[in-house]
Order: sequence, then C-alpha cells, then structure tokens
Amino acid sequence: MRFEKHIFVCENKREEENPRGCCHDKGGADLRQLFKAKLKSKNLNIKFRANAAGCLDACEYGVTVVVYPEQIWYGGVTENDVDEIIENHLIKNIPVERLIIKDNLPTAGRKVYKK
Amino acid sequence: MRFEKHIFVCENKREEENPRGCCHDKGGADLRQLFKAKLKSKNLNIKFRANAAGCLDACEYGVTVVVYPEQIWYGGVTENDVDEIIENHLIKNIPVERLIIKDNLPTAGRKVYKK
Repeated sequence: MRFEKHIFVCENKREEENPRGCCHDKGGADLRQLFKAKLKSKNLNIKFRANAAGCLDACEYGVTVVVYPEQIWYGGVTENDVDEIIENHLIKNIPVERLIIKDNLPTAGRKVYKK
Repeated sequence: MRFEKHIFVCENKREEENPRGCCHDKGGADLRQLFKAKLKSKNLNIKFRANAAGCLDACEYGVTVVVYPEQIWYGGVTENDVDEIIENHLIKNIPVERLIIKDNLPTAGRKVYKK
C-alpha cells in the first residue's frame, strides 16, 4: 500500500447563500493544513497522508474527515481534535468515538429514499 | 459505511513550469466529472462516489485514481478507462490490473529514502 492511513479532509467551497453550507467555510482547508503540518513534524507523513478532498457528501456534519482504509467518518472536526485523531486513531488504531458520524447514509442517499 | 466504494481522482493543479507536472493538466477534473456522470446515469452514485482529491502524491503516474476501502491505486487513467473501472472493479470487484500502480512508495517516501 502507498499509505498506511489516508485522511481525506473536505475543503469543498459553496456560495455563501447555499443552505447546505460547506466544509471550506467551517475551516476545512486550515484543518487539512494543520493535519499535514503535524504529521510532517512527527515524521509521520510517509505513513499517513492528509489529503484535500472535494465534497464528501456529509455536508451537515462538516468539517467532514474520512480515514481510509478503515473508512471511519468524522464530523464536526476542529483544529482542537487533530492531536487526538493523530495520537489515538492514526498511531494507536483507536478511533475517536465522540467524533464518529453515526449516520451511514450519504446526503444523496437520503434524498433518494425520501422520494 | 457511507459508500461501498469511494473513488478519489486527483485534480491537483500546479504551475505550468513545475517539473512534477500535475493531474489537473492531464485531465483529472474532466475524468472525475465523467466518473460522476456515468455513476449517476447507472444509479450507482449512492453506492459509489467519485470524489475530487488534491495531490495524491503519485504525480508521475497521473492522472492518479485511488479506490477505497480496498486501496487500489490506478495510474495514467484516461476517459477511455472509466467504463472498464466501473464495470469490472466497482461492480464486479475485479480491479483493472493493467492500470494498477505497481510501485508502493509515495513520492515523498522516495525522497526520504534517497537521502
């Protein structure tokens, strides 16, 4: 594998008037930069990569972060959560339970099911 | 899980003079749009999501695509490969062998090892 864990941080930007909001305006880009900087400072950036992502379709939970390959989805992630995700999830393999999105249906999925 | 398979397509854009090149200039954004449109036309966009990604650090293989959770990395992907990836990999779970990046070390990794 190329990365042991691959962290995708939503940085999607929508127009201000869009009712769905967007992770960019909630700090997605800064969050990703912080992940990247902290991983690099710990020499963990070869094993773990913090990647920018477009809309992850979990807009109401933003800032949304998904960690693969274990497909753990986090919502409402802030800069205060970065150390805990790195130390517990990435290094010790213990996901940060309090941030996990419990709802497993993507937004597009809910729209379909509501029809 | 929110998606059965999550396809990240690199759309990273670098300045034209950058020797590493970039997936954007090789057609990354159009490729992602094609994945998205084809998945939607087949009503597969709930199970499978084609997502924009920033630099996946496999620049020399661009356009780079990674499919999670199985962490299959594809390089040199063009619009002509989209049907085969959807039909064989996403639907039938048979990865498209000829496109798989064999090298497992990310670019940043190689730089470190070369020191």
